[in-house]
Amino acid sequence: MRLEDFIEVIPDFPKKGVQFKDVTSLMQNGEAYKECIRQMTELVKEMKADVIVGPESRGFMFGCPVAVSLGVGFVPVRKPGKLPRETISQTYELEYGVDTLEMHKDSIKKGQRVVIVDDIVAVGGTMDAIIKMVERVGGELVGMVALMGLTSLPGVEKLTPKGLKCLIYDDVKDE
Amino acid sequence: MRLEDFIEVIPDFPKKGVQFKDVTSLMQNGEAYKECIRQMTELVKEMKADVIVGPESRGFMFGCPVAVSLGVGFVPVRKPGKLPRETISQTYELEYGVDTLEMHKDSIKKGQRVVIVDDIVAVGGTMDAIIKMVERVGGELVGMVALMGLTSLPGVEKLTPKGLKCLIYDDVKDE
Repeated sequence: MRLEDFIEVIPDFPKKGVQFKDVTSLMQNGEAYKECIRQMTELVKEMKADVIVGPESRGFMFGCPVAVSLGVGFVPVRKPGKLPRETISQTYELEYGVDTLEMHKDSIKKGQRVVIVDDIVAVGGTMDAIIKMVERVGGELVGMVALMGLTSLPGVEKLTPKGLKCLIYDDVKDE
Repeated sequence: MRLEDFIEVIPDFPKKGVQFKDVTSLMQNGEAYKECIRQMTELVKEMKADVIVGPESRGFMFGCPVAVSLGVGFVPVRKPGKLPRETISQTYELEYGVDTLEMHKDSIKKGQRVVIVDDIVAVGGTMDAIIKMVERVGGELVGMVALMGLTSLPGVEKLTPKGLKCLIYDDVKDE
């Protein structure tokens, strides 16, 4: 099974010139989705994670099943105002603009081994912001796992030395 | 293990008078999260689902692991403008205001057995909107599963005859 065959490419979404990789077409297929999570779980297991962190909201689609498969906790990173307990926040640049993310302050214990899981790594801004928050609360970043890394954008090159592994590396350039 | 012991109650969030049930405190605990998904998966299995539908974004935290556990597809319901392919949309009232949800038009095949999974059922507006969309695309709603049903609000009473099952029923009244 080639997982990339299940990811549809949507031209000009969310704006002209962007070739959007649609992971929901993969998730609609039960076998493909299960195989994707199996492969991601293998990678995270090798990293010996104590806890998975994933960003709103496509990071939940992959990070949550991986956490359940391994029996470890999941810590959501969300847009401002969504998390009810005391949070820390981090502003960052992303592919289509600027944004801020929040994480519960008490969500990671000092020294816990943390793996960040997301769907796609493009410029790597989301991952960067989460890495900073993980470090600020005293977690030990031991790796990052994504379904797809877009090698025509700087995220993969920048984050691979810090432990990023992707199931698929895609070198298709946006227009 | 009592799952309700892992759900923190946050007073006055997101607005004064609301006792917010925080499911992220449960998810941070790997054992509690895994047990929660095991119980939800049992319920969905009895309903013989072909596909799971869940709303952005806490529905992803529970619906995605259940779908992977059963090896069935997951269809995300999202806020407007987030889904890249052709969508249908539904406007509805929710506990704290009014909102619109979207679903990919081709995401459910005619006659497929659909179970909706979410974290908490309050007034039931989200569930109602999703039921309408499932019916519009020709899916057969065979049940709904939530972690918690708030029995002091109308959702549980309204949706139980349509197949809603919750792991926890909570009768604490908001102030």
